Amino acid sequence: MPRYALRVEYHGAPFSGWQRQKDQPSVQGAIEDALRRLEPRAHAIAAAGRTDAGVHALGQVAHCDMDKAWDPFRLSEALNYHLKPAPVAITGCAQVSDTWHARFSATNRQYLFRLLTRRPPATLEKGLVWQVSQKLDVAAMREGASYLLGKHDFTTFRSTICQAKSPIKTLDRLDVEEIMGPSGPEVHFHVQARSFLHNQVRSFVGTLERVGAGSWSPEEVKAALEATDRAACGPVCPPQGLYLARVGYDEDPFAASES
Amino acid sequence: MPRYALRVEYHGAPFSGWQRQKDQPSVQGAIEDALRRLEPRAHAIAAAGRTDAGVHALGQVAHCDMDKAWDPFRLSEALNYHLKPAPVAITGCAQVSDTWHARFSATNRQYLFRLLTRRPPATLEKGLVWQVSQKLDVAAMREGASYLLGKHDFTTFRSTICQAKSPIKTLDRLDVEEIMGPSGPEVHFHVQARSFLHNQVRSFVGTLERVGAGSWSPEEVKAALEATDRAACGPVCPPQGLYLARVGYDEDPFAASES
Repeated sequence: MPRYALRVEYHGAPFSGWQRQKDQPSVQGAIEDALRRLEPRAHAIAAAGRTDAGVHALGQVAHCDMDKAWDPFRLSEALNYHLKPAPVAITGCAQVSDTWHARFSATNRQYLFRLLTRRPPATLEKGLVWQVSQKLDVAAMREGASYLLGKHDFTTFRSTICQAKSPIKTLDRLDVEEIMGPSGPEVHFHVQARSFLHNQVRSFVGTLERVGAGSWSPEEVKAALEATDRAACGPVCPPQGLYLARVGYDEDPFAASES
Repeated sequence: MPRYALRVEYHGAPFSGWQRQKDQPSVQGAIEDALRRLEPRAHAIAAAGRTDAGVHALGQVAHCDMDKAWDPFRLSEALNYHLKPAPVAITGCAQVSDTWHARFSATNRQYLFRLLTRRPPATLEKGLVWQVSQKLDVAAMREGASYLLGKHDFTTFRSTICQAKSPIKTLDRLDVEEIMGPSGPEVHFHVQARSFLHNQVRSFVGTLERVGAGSWSPEEVKAALEATDRAACGPVCPPQGLYLARVGYDEDPFAASES
């Protein structure tokens, strides 16, 4: 069975998350339903990151196995046709080897978190950002973020329902950037690791927002990390500012089709 | 009665347009309803640009007359409270003189039009851009746009229901810019004039898209303009990529409150 890598963009709002659920709309379910229109049988696709309800993706990666050999461009076109009107789009498609796996072959995941800081409620960006009304001290947030970089036991920043075997992960990047967005000032978090614990990014952002607001000192982030205690975490922030931006592989499966 | 200038941001999708209509949601109606919660009587506000159904605003400007003197910041906060959950936000508020008028004092209107050029359907940007699937020749579009600059009889680019007394307008700016948007390549149109005819920007963009796609030569834009005939216009493009970006006044009424 030929295997295809799919790059997937979606708006998280209408979905209970990536993972197929009984009686609830999911991104995985939407794509598997579209695949069934092309080859009528059960399909089971795998993805690099199982995003939660409300979380968006700019560059999720999944793979599917097909009975017949499809031209990758035609496969993406056919899937996009059947995915409508769900806000899910296949933005890249490439044939890969039988042993390539969207999840297990991935060497890193990159997330973007958008935090809008202004008083008037978001209108055009509603559902696409987390909004807080006060200005944030970005220098203090950067200092707090610096303590999280590297290899640590991230028990503090891990949801109690996290299924990972170990809480020890290596955080490669946590950049805090100030930008002027279309509707006002935003703080963007660029976060990268080989893999993440459940709710890890939202636990980071919720905690660092407290630092930016002045309720926490940057050093309290260090103390929270060292406590290795979920109760030491700041509030977990809401999902709608979070985007799975990119999944890294030793060799980019989509490189050839986009040159 | 003290008069207040309001800067207004909105998502156009749920509205039949700016103007109050019987039995249809409008932005004007939403703001007037919110004003009635503050001072219970009929309110009639005026705006710089009466945007059509589906058109967004980043910086619409309106004015309202109040019985009592409001602190401008508190007035905007109270309106935003009562506007929820409609995607309308007051992003600036300032007291102005009794003779200041949001529409008649305005010296220019600036529109932004976002055109996303990619094959996969928009997901995160759905409703915020007009999407076409082919790449466009932006140099040709710029050449076509150049013929529209300056003072002309714009009958070709004017809706048949336009109520303006004269079809002669002066177009001060029509820049065509290529940018990499969050979901792919976009063409942005920056358009500025003292005032516009009904559907003028969407008639420009629809016509210039035909130039970018190669169906029209740039010179055909000149011929269409010179025809002064509505039938010579290209297709009017859809509203969801259009934003009323800014309204210019001799003196910015919001400058003091934002310094």
